[in-house]
Amino acid sequence: MAIKKVKADLVGNMGFEMELDGFPLLMDASKEVGGEERGPRPKALLLSALIGCTGMDVASMLNKMQVELDGLTIEVEAEEAEEHPRVYTKIHVIYRFRGDNLPEDKLNRAVTLSQEQYCSVSAILKKAAPITYEVVIE
Amino acid sequence: MAIKKVKADLVGNMGFEMELDGFPLLMDASKEVGGEERGPRPKALLLSALIGCTGMDVASMLNKMQVELDGLTIEVEAEEAEEHPRVYTKIHVIYRFRGDNLPEDKLNRAVTLSQEQYCSVSAILKKAAPITYEVVIE
Repeated sequence: MAIKKVKADLVGNMGFEMELDGFPLLMDASKEVGGEERGPRPKALLLSALIGCTGMDVASMLNKMQVELDGLTIEVEAEEAEEHPRVYTKIHVIYRFRGDNLPEDKLNRAVTLSQEQYCSVSAILKKAAPITYEVVIE
Repeated sequence: MAIKKVKADLVGNMGFEMELDGFPLLMDASKEVGGEERGPRPKALLLSALIGCTGMDVASMLNKMQVELDGLTIEVEAEEAEEHPRVYTKIHVIYRFRGDNLPEDKLNRAVTLSQEQYCSVSAILKKAAPITYEVVIE
C-alpha cells in the first residue's frame, strides 16, 4: 500500500514551511489573524490541487487523442460556508480551451473522464461539496 | 456569501501555473507520466493544506493561551487506494511540540478544537477519509 508523508515546521507566528516533491512551499496566515502573509493561505490550496489534478488528466488524455491545444486555462469558483469550520459548499470548474478547430466531443470526453473516473482530488473533494464543471472553447 | 476563485494556465506538457494570494505556484507531473517535474504533484497539496490549516489554528490558540513554543513540526501520513481514482483512505496527523514545561492539557485542547471544530480543511478531507491525530511533546 502506498503511503504519502508530508512534514512542515512552524516559522514565525503562524507560517508553515515544507518541502513537497523537492520544492519549497511556505504557507502563512493573513495579518488580520496574526500571520505575516509570507505565503498563500492553506484552504485555497485545495482548489489549486483540484486544478492541477484534473488539468494534468485532461492535458494527458488530449495529447493521447492527438488534440493540439494553443492553451488551456482552468478556473475554479468555490462557495464557502458562513459558519466555522468554513468549508466549501459548492465547487464549479471551468475549462477554457484555445486552439484551431478543436473537437468538442473529445474535450468533453477528457473532462468527463477526469472528473468522473480519474482525478483523485476531485473524488476526495466531492465527498464534501458537489463539483460541477463546464467546457468553454474560446 | 464568500466565493473563492482560483485560475491557472497550462504551461509545457502538463504543468499548471497560478497565483495564490499573490504568490506564484507551479504544479507539474512526474516525468514517468509525461510531465517535466518543474513543481510539486497536486494531490499531496491536500496534505500540505491540512498541515497549514490545523497548524495555524493551533499556533494561534496556544498564543492566546500564553503557551510559548520552541518549535512545532507537523507530520501527515496518508494511505492511498490502489485503484483509480487513487484517493486517500486514511490520514494521520502528528503534532510534535518542543519547549520547556509545556502544558499537555492545553496542547491537547488546541489540537482537538482545531480538528473537531475550526479547521476547514480537516472538515472537508474527513468527509473522504478518517483523520486521526496525536500530540507528541519532545
